Amino acid sequence: MSIIITAFERSPDGGRGLARDTRVRWALEEVGQPYEVRLVSFRAIKEPAHLALHPFGQIPTYEEGDLALFETGAIVFHIAQRHAGLLPVDANARARAITWMFAAVNTIEPPILELGTARLLEGDKPWHNERLPLVEDRVRSRLKQLSARLDDADWLDGAFSAGDLMMVSVLLRLRLSGILDEYPNLAAYLARGEARPAYKRAFAAQLAVNTGKPPTR
Amino acid sequence: MSIIITAFERSPDGGRGLARDTRVRWALEEVGQPYEVRLVSFRAIKEPAHLALHPFGQIPTYEEGDLALFETGAIVFHIAQRHAGLLPVDANARARAITWMFAAVNTIEPPILELGTARLLEGDKPWHNERLPLVEDRVRSRLKQLSARLDDADWLDGAFSAGDLMMVSVLLRLRLSGILDEYPNLAAYLARGEARPAYKRAFAAQLAVNTGKPPTR
Repeated sequence: MSIIITAFERSPDGGRGLARDTRVRWALEEVGQPYEVRLVSFRAIKEPAHLALHPFGQIPTYEEGDLALFETGAIVFHIAQRHAGLLPVDANARARAITWMFAAVNTIEPPILELGTARLLEGDKPWHNERLPLVEDRVRSRLKQLSARLDDADWLDGAFSAGDLMMVSVLLRLRLSGILDEYPNLAAYLARGEARPAYKRAFAAQLAVNTGKPPTR
Repeated sequence: MSIIITAFERSPDGGRGLARDTRVRWALEEVGQPYEVRLVSFRAIKEPAHLALHPFGQIPTYEEGDLALFETGAIVFHIAQRHAGLLPVDANARARAITWMFAAVNTIEPPILELGTARLLEGDKPWHNERLPLVEDRVRSRLKQLSARLDDADWLDGAFSAGDLMMVSVLLRLRLSGILDEYPNLAAYLARGEARPAYKRAFAAQLAVNTGKPPTR
């Protein structure tokens, strides 16, 4: 059964890999599953056909035979459940890796999303300059804790897992802010994630959509 | 093997059920698993012994023999994986229920957290009154989509699942804002969640901690 995901025909980030289809592409590359991409426009994701697949009018979606999923974390988890390579076999280690998936999206990502919102949606508001440092500090307080836990390990809990895939993906959103550079072990963790061949293929594939050039692979 | 969770000895909400141990208690009640609670103070959660269990210095944590987990969504998922009653047996239906767990914490909860942050941490800022409606509208845009998807169904996808448990728990945080009343089917969905015997037991148990009265059960 072929796997079909959706992605923007033109990503808001111009192909810097921050649109969430990159997370799903990365997971599929890690487990060696081929996939097709159906490109959608900003207008199309708000129309009934897409909303039937994704009630919040976002990308990516995931279709495989009778199964249709939305929500990036859930799609990455589904891929990791179905195919070897992203979750440990040992039950306890597996539960801990899944814990990091949830920590990525529910503890680390919310303040990062708030920082993005402050910049994108409130950048022109009179309070922006005074408020931004408060929002940044809320991000920092989480990064400090994450940095302390990671310490000098390569990955969050043993071998690379779907938990790392999600955490690296979430942290990538901070790249341009410069905040990550304050935590050298997190910056190195991010670099390890980006150096994975599967990430590179995923990044190249989404970039090719945005530049109109087919990836060389 | 006995299950031990952590909860605040005094919850910031005074026992209104919004501290996240309620989500875990509810899941354990749904699957009929007994559990013990280790109460912790605001000070203790920032100390090394607790940080070893929970790197972000929060509650709840979950211990069961050799296994130690943190992050509410992951704990609820672990409980749902291990015991019947919170996830469908059919593989596709199960994947869809897990999708709603992630949607609860990564799509619906972030703007709700931002609203809480605006009130709790920025309520005294000069921009508060002008900014609050913007934050509320970001919550509304998600609720509108969720309301459209739920339509007149009882639960998000077939029978009650861990996805509904997480979604109801996230929406409960909006109770005092009055925003939920703008979406009658979501308000009714919440009421259905709260009417479940397992939720009532979980709520009573956390309330008893905060009032100092043992639950009657």
